[in-house]
Amino acid sequence: MIIPPELAPPTRVLLGPGPSDVDSRVLRAMATPLLGHLDPEFLKIMDEVQEMLREVFRTRNPLTFPVSATGSAGMEAVLVNLLEPGDEAVVCVHGVFGNRMSDIVERCGARLARVDAPWGSHVDPEQVRDALKGRKPKLVAIVHAETSTGVLQPLEEIGELVRAAGPLFVVDAVTSLGGVDVRVDDWGIDAIYSGTQKCLSAPPGLAPVSFSPRAVEAVTARKTKPQSWYLDTTMIMNYWGGSRAYHHTAPISSIYAIHEALRLVLLEGLEARFTRHRRNHELLREGLEGLGFEFVVAPEYRLPQLNTVRLPEGLEDAPTRRRLLDEHSIEVGGGLGEFAGKVWRVGLMGCSSDEKHVNLLLSALRGIMKQ
Amino acid sequence: MIIPPELAPPTRVLLGPGPSDVDSRVLRAMATPLLGHLDPEFLKIMDEVQEMLREVFRTRNPLTFPVSATGSAGMEAVLVNLLEPGDEAVVCVHGVFGNRMSDIVERCGARLARVDAPWGSHVDPEQVRDALKGRKPKLVAIVHAETSTGVLQPLEEIGELVRAAGPLFVVDAVTSLGGVDVRVDDWGIDAIYSGTQKCLSAPPGLAPVSFSPRAVEAVTARKTKPQSWYLDTTMIMNYWGGSRAYHHTAPISSIYAIHEALRLVLLEGLEARFTRHRRNHELLREGLEGLGFEFVVAPEYRLPQLNTVRLPEGLEDAPTRRRLLDEHSIEVGGGLGEFAGKVWRVGLMGCSSDEKHVNLLLSALRGIMKQ
Repeated sequence: MIIPPELAPPTRVLLGPGPSDVDSRVLRAMATPLLGHLDPEFLKIMDEVQEMLREVFRTRNPLTFPVSATGSAGMEAVLVNLLEPGDEAVVCVHGVFGNRMSDIVERCGARLARVDAPWGSHVDPEQVRDALKGRKPKLVAIVHAETSTGVLQPLEEIGELVRAAGPLFVVDAVTSLGGVDVRVDDWGIDAIYSGTQKCLSAPPGLAPVSFSPRAVEAVTARKTKPQSWYLDTTMIMNYWGGSRAYHHTAPISSIYAIHEALRLVLLEGLEARFTRHRRNHELLREGLEGLGFEFVVAPEYRLPQLNTVRLPEGLEDAPTRRRLLDEHSIEVGGGLGEFAGKVWRVGLMGCSSDEKHVNLLLSALRGIMKQ
Repeated sequence: MIIPPELAPPTRVLLGPGPSDVDSRVLRAMATPLLGHLDPEFLKIMDEVQEMLREVFRTRNPLTFPVSATGSAGMEAVLVNLLEPGDEAVVCVHGVFGNRMSDIVERCGARLARVDAPWGSHVDPEQVRDALKGRKPKLVAIVHAETSTGVLQPLEEIGELVRAAGPLFVVDAVTSLGGVDVRVDDWGIDAIYSGTQKCLSAPPGLAPVSFSPRAVEAVTARKTKPQSWYLDTTMIMNYWGGSRAYHHTAPISSIYAIHEALRLVLLEGLEARFTRHRRNHELLREGLEGLGFEFVVAPEYRLPQLNTVRLPEGLEDAPTRRRLLDEHSIEVGGGLGEFAGKVWRVGLMGCSSDEKHVNLLLSALRGIMKQ
């Protein structure tokens, strides 16, 4: 065969639903020569990653670590560890990722009770209260930041009523962590997962998760093994916790990357980071509305890091995104699921949430729309 | 919290069971700024990775791609896609990784028939023939290079008899691929998985897999969904194949790394690479035997890239490995499972298979043993 040349990809401005731009310091960390996965020096790095993750999740949960695969594997890790065949799970669905949770719940052999809300809306606490009437599910699961719709789902009230009723409270924070506030302990969250390639601005490849002591109890009380060996927390916790027993080879370079990315998050400060995300969202909103784009989500439920907008009359979806990519090297996301072909998803996540990026996109759009 | 400083890990010589040393060009590729996972430029890179993987696996299987997680997830991906509850699987066990396959087979709800061989030995084709008498299993699975014992398992004869009997032939090539010959098409292998952090010398994080058309048929003929959403090949093949439909966000930087690592494998040439692995194994063998180490595996079944040796009388296992690490920055592996505390595993995989490394290890050992 003809061996392809060395990679020389174009430099993009990543304003889609992830991956987001990665800081050069994180890229540099990826290029660090490897340690072994049982090297004492590597174990120290793991400890630091766990401690920084707890800070970002705002939790003291000992069982907090990055799963060795991308965000969706975090979803699967949480669900396959908590659910056994015959368990019941309530899943709130207001977009693609609630649907994905439902799919996984069924693959676990658990009974699924869905709470649906229209795409672009949030789930109302009363819906969850109704779903819990006459049911004793093992868990209630909900997406905090629906990447398919741009909805920021309020969690406090739902968390309170779930805890009062007894089930475990499971949250998808793939797109929220590092972009808007996520308070695991204050909100009574029992199991949460995220991804690295959104507001943490590390390359995709890890899924940070955290389990409350109550969730750990549920895992250790299982009667059957989790259906996934790779994601079996009862074994993984020995590697990330006490005995450091080998389970699988940790993705060393990705752990280097998340170490640096978490450092940058904490050096900036969580509050300052959230403020930056809101400020750049406002700048984008003004600009896009001025060009005739319409936001899908009501103002109080908008994610600053993921802006779903309907295109102005006459502007075509795919050809315009292709022009942004080819002529300006800017990536924005198309719609997913019900929203395919109908909306754009403009991500301002982590390093991509930058005033210069917003202005670049707006000026490119003005140029295209003038023609 | 006190934010930890930037990473500055010591530079190791990695002579354990993986990860192996990574070429600086692969590390540099990891630091390449990211493309989106649906960017046309990224799709081209995916095509090149698939084509190079086919070359290294010596196959024309269209369904050849890297699973987005480490080697053990490749094992899980192959088994959960091929097995349904109630299916029967014959698993050959001659070390930790055959045991791991058995565990996963049981988690699939499949009936397990084990073929056991003593640790440090290979599985005899007659054992497999006996196991197939009166059985019609869905698959027969075997480890090509047992990382826990250093045994190179001959596959041709077993492959022939499995194919003649009808089951799918499944092979673990985590430690063999890129270090010794692996011939997927010639040996009638239906499903195979590997890892990047062994003889391919890329960082851990991906599991190259390949499915024969017969295996793809078995997957598409399933009556139930695979128990893993993340590893469900029926969906992943759409992203790596025709429609490019989004499934999960691909680990972009790891794909950059494997692209460069595969390029380096093919630029060296497979045969030249295997010869280098054998040559450095011979050098190591001479040196270690001269120091009183004894090889566990009979000469004709030894893996050149993973050398299991018993320590000379009086040399302590853990303290000596710790001195190699602390005083010489050399990592060698301890024993696993039945071999824990009894043997060392000295890896000469990919970039770690280097004459300078062998001499460095031997001279460090001579120094320690003189004292």
